Amino acid sequence: MKAAWIEAGEVSLRDVPPPKRLPGQALLRLITGGICNTDLELQRGYYGFAGTPGHEFVAEVIAADDPAWIGQRVVGEINLACGKCDWCARDLGRHCPQRTVLGIVRHPGAFAEKFTLPESNLRRVPAGVSTEHAVFTEPVAASCEILEQVAIPAAAAVAVLGDGKLGLLIAQVLAAHGLRVRLFGRHADKLRIAALAGVSTELATGALPEAAFRYVVDATGSAEGLAQAVRMTEPRGTLILKSTVAGRVAVETAPIIVNELTLVGSRCGRFEPALELIAAGKLHLDEMIAGRYPLSAAPRAFAQAGTRGTLKVLLDG
Amino acid sequence: MKAAWIEAGEVSLRDVPPPKRLPGQALLRLITGGICNTDLELQRGYYGFAGTPGHEFVAEVIAADDPAWIGQRVVGEINLACGKCDWCARDLGRHCPQRTVLGIVRHPGAFAEKFTLPESNLRRVPAGVSTEHAVFTEPVAASCEILEQVAIPAAAAVAVLGDGKLGLLIAQVLAAHGLRVRLFGRHADKLRIAALAGVSTELATGALPEAAFRYVVDATGSAEGLAQAVRMTEPRGTLILKSTVAGRVAVETAPIIVNELTLVGSRCGRFEPALELIAAGKLHLDEMIAGRYPLSAAPRAFAQAGTRGTLKVLLDG
Repeated sequence: MKAAWIEAGEVSLRDVPPPKRLPGQALLRLITGGICNTDLELQRGYYGFAGTPGHEFVAEVIAADDPAWIGQRVVGEINLACGKCDWCARDLGRHCPQRTVLGIVRHPGAFAEKFTLPESNLRRVPAGVSTEHAVFTEPVAASCEILEQVAIPAAAAVAVLGDGKLGLLIAQVLAAHGLRVRLFGRHADKLRIAALAGVSTELATGALPEAAFRYVVDATGSAEGLAQAVRMTEPRGTLILKSTVAGRVAVETAPIIVNELTLVGSRCGRFEPALELIAAGKLHLDEMIAGRYPLSAAPRAFAQAGTRGTLKVLLDG
Repeated sequence: MKAAWIEAGEVSLRDVPPPKRLPGQALLRLITGGICNTDLELQRGYYGFAGTPGHEFVAEVIAADDPAWIGQRVVGEINLACGKCDWCARDLGRHCPQRTVLGIVRHPGAFAEKFTLPESNLRRVPAGVSTEHAVFTEPVAASCEILEQVAIPAAAAVAVLGDGKLGLLIAQVLAAHGLRVRLFGRHADKLRIAALAGVSTELATGALPEAAFRYVVDATGSAEGLAQAVRMTEPRGTLILKSTVAGRVAVETAPIIVNELTLVGSRCGRFEPALELIAAGKLHLDEMIAGRYPLSAAPRAFAQAGTRGTLKVLLDG
């Protein structure tokens, strides 16, 4: 079968053997995948990754232990947990130390004609939710995760830095929960998408407000952005770190300590609240799709996705 | 009057005019001061500081608006807050944006024959507490601050990294609160002091345990120590940042995000719980005094304090 393949910085299309479905797993046929910044980081050498990427997807179940899954249109949680450890017992399989991760850590990804996931990872896409919207479930879940980690009071003001794919989703998700979101970004056209969802936006060309927000989310993906986010957070405030920068970042720890900031690293989230939010139609997702390619054109899709400033690029199976 | 003076990396003794006591302030005569790492950072150029340092002290009140203060032996909170802003209204004058800070920010420090502080900053040293113990109030308060910021459950295991002055105090303070503290350091003689206070200690010569503690305190003052502290914190765990490293530190943000760590910057604390703890005799402080000099020998005192591995150096007024 055809699968996208990342190795040594190159994306190619390979003919690989179809995956073997293990007990408890479902065999999935890709309908549509989404290219995430993490995929681009994998291409750049994060983890020393070599293999088939892809963890944002909508798929059809073509084989499963439980026949009720067959034919269902699904999304899926990307962490394959052991199910036996303390983390799994605490419903935190996303932190299971034995876990593999779809398309990231030792489990072939979704940018292939077929791939596998445990049935317990699958979530049915509700009728009425388009595939083009459902493919955003994973990053929307990652955005919702902020609210599971930090008890932000109702109607609080939150600054989001960065108007890339994740920043736009975070801003929309937080606004959909009634928070007063101010999104700082450098692209008027992208800020406009968040504005459609009721987010107050600011083109961040000059100096940004200092010590001005009790809650700040850094989604810039840059060392400079992180430093700005630190400066923007008021004393005793909370800064949520949502985007990794590959390798080491030069950070001034003094303002974090002097102002007694709390920094919260935030990664994947549960899919249920994300699907609910998407089904409720509160997010502007169509406007975030920048390109769409067949799986066979994965190299071109990655090339577009990797062009600075590109929003979501989709891959159809 | 005589005062220590830091300028361009040098510590000297100067003859300076005595301070003017403003309304609401007390005039204080230094009994004993303690040299803190922050003083050494000021000497190295932190803040571009030039002036009289000193913020750990025991003093006698020699003039005050309220005559009840006269003759009292006192310690004092080091932040001089405006008393009018929202921060002050929330009893967080330590974060007042208008604040000056004794011996650090625009208020002459305690390493002088005389100095001033608002009467509201003063705390009487209880009878029965020696001056040599009371001079530790400020760093003990900074250690207690951890417990005001982070709700660590009773009897939880906490790792403290770094067996310098602050690390030893933090380990002792947390142990005195019933937490199961494991102190990792590189100096057997210093670890022994914490062990006297019931702290479990480990000479950190080789590899340290990874993802092993839900609560970790970094008191190493080094970039390498911070990276180790990140690795030692388990997923969803809390890492308290207690020691600044001057300038920028190269930090890998990926493990903070992947493991969804919470980092909490922590600085000064309230004096009341610190004085209570010292009065209760639960801390081993005598063993932490490495040297003692008259104020006139401040340059020599700083030279000793600045020698790697030196514990507390005192200055007598």
